[in-house]
Amino acid sequence: MELTAQYIADQIGGEITGDPQTKVSSVARIESAKPGTLAFLGNPKYENYIYTCRASIIIISKSFEPSSPLSATLLRVDDPYQAIASVLELFNSLKSNRKRGRSWSAKIAWSSKIGKRCYIGEGSVISKRAVIGDGAQIYPQCYIGDDVEIGANSVIYPGVKIYAGCKIGSDCIIHANAVIGADGFGFAPAPDGSYKKIPQTGNVVIENNCEIGANTTIDRASIGSTIIRQGVKIDNLVMIAHNVEIGKNTVVAGQTGFAGSVRVGEGCMFGGQVGVAGHITIADKTIIGAQTGIISNIKEEGKTLLGSPAMDAREYMKAYSIFRKLHKR
Amino acid sequence: MELTAQYIADQIGGEITGDPQTKVSSVARIESAKPGTLAFLGNPKYENYIYTCRASIIIISKSFEPSSPLSATLLRVDDPYQAIASVLELFNSLKSNRKRGRSWSAKIAWSSKIGKRCYIGEGSVISKRAVIGDGAQIYPQCYIGDDVEIGANSVIYPGVKIYAGCKIGSDCIIHANAVIGADGFGFAPAPDGSYKKIPQTGNVVIENNCEIGANTTIDRASIGSTIIRQGVKIDNLVMIAHNVEIGKNTVVAGQTGFAGSVRVGEGCMFGGQVGVAGHITIADKTIIGAQTGIISNIKEEGKTLLGSPAMDAREYMKAYSIFRKLHKR
Amino acid sequence: MELTAQYIADQIGGEITGDPQTKVSSVARIESAKPGTLAFLGNPKYENYIYTCRASIIIISKSFEPSSPLSATLLRVDDPYQAIASVLELFNSLKSNRKRGRSWSAKIAWSSKIGKRCYIGEGSVISKRAVIGDGAQIYPQCYIGDDVEIGANSVIYPGVKIYAGCKIGSDCIIHANAVIGADGFGFAPAPDGSYKKIPQTGNVVIENNCEIGANTTIDRASIGSTIIRQGVKIDNLVMIAHNVEIGKNTVVAGQTGFAGSVRVGEGCMFGGQVGVAGHITIADKTIIGAQTGIISNIKEEGKTLLGSPAMDAREYMKAYSIFRKLHKR
Repeated sequence: MELTAQYIADQIGGEITGDPQTKVSSVARIESAKPGTLAFLGNPKYENYIYTCRASIIIISKSFEPSSPLSATLLRVDDPYQAIASVLELFNSLKSNRKRGRSWSAKIAWSSKIGKRCYIGEGSVISKRAVIGDGAQIYPQCYIGDDVEIGANSVIYPGVKIYAGCKIGSDCIIHANAVIGADGFGFAPAPDGSYKKIPQTGNVVIENNCEIGANTTIDRASIGSTIIRQGVKIDNLVMIAHNVEIGKNTVVAGQTGFAGSVRVGEGCMFGGQVGVAGHITIADKTIIGAQTGIISNIKEEGKTLLGSPAMDAREYMKAYSIFRKLHKR
Repeated sequence: MELTAQYIADQIGGEITGDPQTKVSSVARIESAKPGTLAFLGNPKYENYIYTCRASIIIISKSFEPSSPLSATLLRVDDPYQAIASVLELFNSLKSNRKRGRSWSAKIAWSSKIGKRCYIGEGSVISKRAVIGDGAQIYPQCYIGDDVEIGANSVIYPGVKIYAGCKIGSDCIIHANAVIGADGFGFAPAPDGSYKKIPQTGNVVIENNCEIGANTTIDRASIGSTIIRQGVKIDNLVMIAHNVEIGKNTVVAGQTGFAGSVRVGEGCMFGGQVGVAGHITIADKTIIGAQTGIISNIKEEGKTLLGSPAMDAREYMKAYSIFRKLHKR
Repeated sequence: MELTAQYIADQIGGEITGDPQTKVSSVARIESAKPGTLAFLGNPKYENYIYTCRASIIIISKSFEPSSPLSATLLRVDDPYQAIASVLELFNSLKSNRKRGRSWSAKIAWSSKIGKRCYIGEGSVISKRAVIGDGAQIYPQCYIGDDVEIGANSVIYPGVKIYAGCKIGSDCIIHANAVIGADGFGFAPAPDGSYKKIPQTGNVVIENNCEIGANTTIDRASIGSTIIRQGVKIDNLVMIAHNVEIGKNTVVAGQTGFAGSVRVGEGCMFGGQVGVAGHITIADKTIIGAQTGIISNIKEEGKTLLGSPAMDAREYMKAYSIFRKLHKR
């Protein structure tokens, strides 16, 4: 299936330079694109490739001025990343991979409620009183505990385990082998040096439009709910402890961890391998660089932090540049 | 089901101030408690809430003196955390969630031995000669390899994989998708730059009363056993390499990693994202702050460490406070 | 089954000091070896044990000179680690644990192609058009997506999930609950503060002779392939983001993470908990210490790095030794 530059521009916007009838059948990386493909220039680091690129159509930013003439048909847009996302969706929508039906080997409790047009894959377990929304996709080998709710059109990839009582919104994606609702890490020390388990009686609530990465773990609250607000995107191998709340549209990169009762504001960005200590509050729009350690509240919005413990990112880099030479002074 | 303050005090100890006939039906967080619930004040950071809290009963420390009068019935105890754990257990014990029976879709080898009152969930595999103790709970989709032993009353949550030959004690809890007994990371370099696998022929031994978090991995020994001693509590996404030994009653927070052949003493506490290099020995009662890196033996008991490489925690914080201003000097 | 010192020397090379007819039936650790076992001295830290060791045969380096006489039969080799790997393999080969046959509870698509002498375990799913090479071992509860290819003699342990379209080479080992091919973490910000998913349409390619640890995640490329080259060994809980390429024979210890589009050279060694920022290139034979953070390209081969951000490892240790005393100056 081929799309013309004109058709793409009609769908996603942008200005064509070159032949509007240029056809492409797939998307390719700018380094390795062949004729018949569409490539894009997002990161300026890759500018060099654009002059040798053999793609038939290249999406570029309206603000980008090539330093040599380009042979490809160009599609100039405001934001090449947004545009390429839309193009990929265009191609995707033409070969829908939405699955349907219930496998005979899935174990579906009589008291559960399964919506219309759902997919329940091989060996998945839907426990008592669970409610699965219309169009939800439960891949094979998932465990959906008692009283769990999963909203419409959410996709649960193979091997995800959701403990009893957790609530997942609509249009969420949870990747393979993630664990939602395991017990929080709560113990009371006894006089003999051993630890007594504090029962973890709460749950996890994930609102609409969230994505949770592979092998990520989100623990249930000891009392109340661990809450992931609408539009939050969480990468792989992230640890979210009991009673944490992550604010709307915050994004969290891989291997970051939040200790118990942390409250994160809206629109924050976490790099990878960040650690946040228990009971910390983080203001909206905070940006936290990779490997940072947060041990005190971030009260002011929009700061950028680095270091362990965290400090202003630019100050950290300046101090670190002195640190590098400490032994030479 | 409602419990009176008197009944709770009889069960868990403590002194009542107020009406001993006050009734509660559940436990709530102090920030959001409603009438008919029981709340507690553990962390002094939450003291403010106590004066506006609408809970019917509040558990507080005997040493706590409220600065204004409180309307709730108070239960004064030595340790509010211990007390709330006991109260939650009281409520829990009244609605037991212990499961029974073997799913027809579980694959149970003829040569395995399953104890009395066990639960073997859907799609779980119990391999040859495995021994499952009385009252053990194996949730769905678990893999129990050949010759594995699991002690009485242990709970294995969905998707846990236990490789052949590993031994789990009694009263243990292993959370979803944890992996016990995968091969240690052992390779010998060959002259051509490739690596030859060193067969990992040992096992993992987890003693009684341990808890292992979701998606945590504990590798089998190359020779002998990787050992988790009695009462150890391990959080999610922790990595324990081959031939490690973790001493009795040590607790390990999320995303911490131990390289091969580390020996950790008894009663230690590890924060999150700590790394310990191979072949290190750590003395009893060591406390290690989050994100610390340990590259030499800790010989003295009871130290508190921070930094990468690790140093005395207070010294680290002092040195870091100078580091923060290095570029301003 | 017993092997003589002579037989072992014939198989793996080395010079015997003592009785060539000495027999052993298993391998033991030097600290706890009993008569009838074979031990080895690899790490010089363990030299003390050699003088009290009761093993019948001890493998030592040709360059090692004992300071007291030893009673055991000695086998002197160039590289004790290589030698012990070979001895373990000798013992292993005599009790093959290769499994055969297809479980009736595995779900195998009609359009898939399963090679000769394969094992497909209980509850595993082999999806449409998947191709499984001769002698491959798929343990229980695995998910092999549409169009996945797995090469000859590869071993896929329980609970591994491989998303559609990924390619695994021959003689690979993938440990339990690893996830291959989940969506990369790619989102385009929308004007209202939410994020729009960028479809991840590529795949993961793992070449021959690789080992992937338990609960490790390797994401599919947004476009093109995430590539793990021949002979790469990856430990547990490692995160490899979309479009990363890891060069031949590189080894990566536990909990390390690579952000998107990183390119790692051949023969590199990564310690645990290292983080590499997006779009970074790392030269061949780079050695990166644990907990290091890489935020700029490493252009020169063979460097050893530490710190966050990374610098020369020896320089880091020198600077850090000053840091430790900063507050005392």
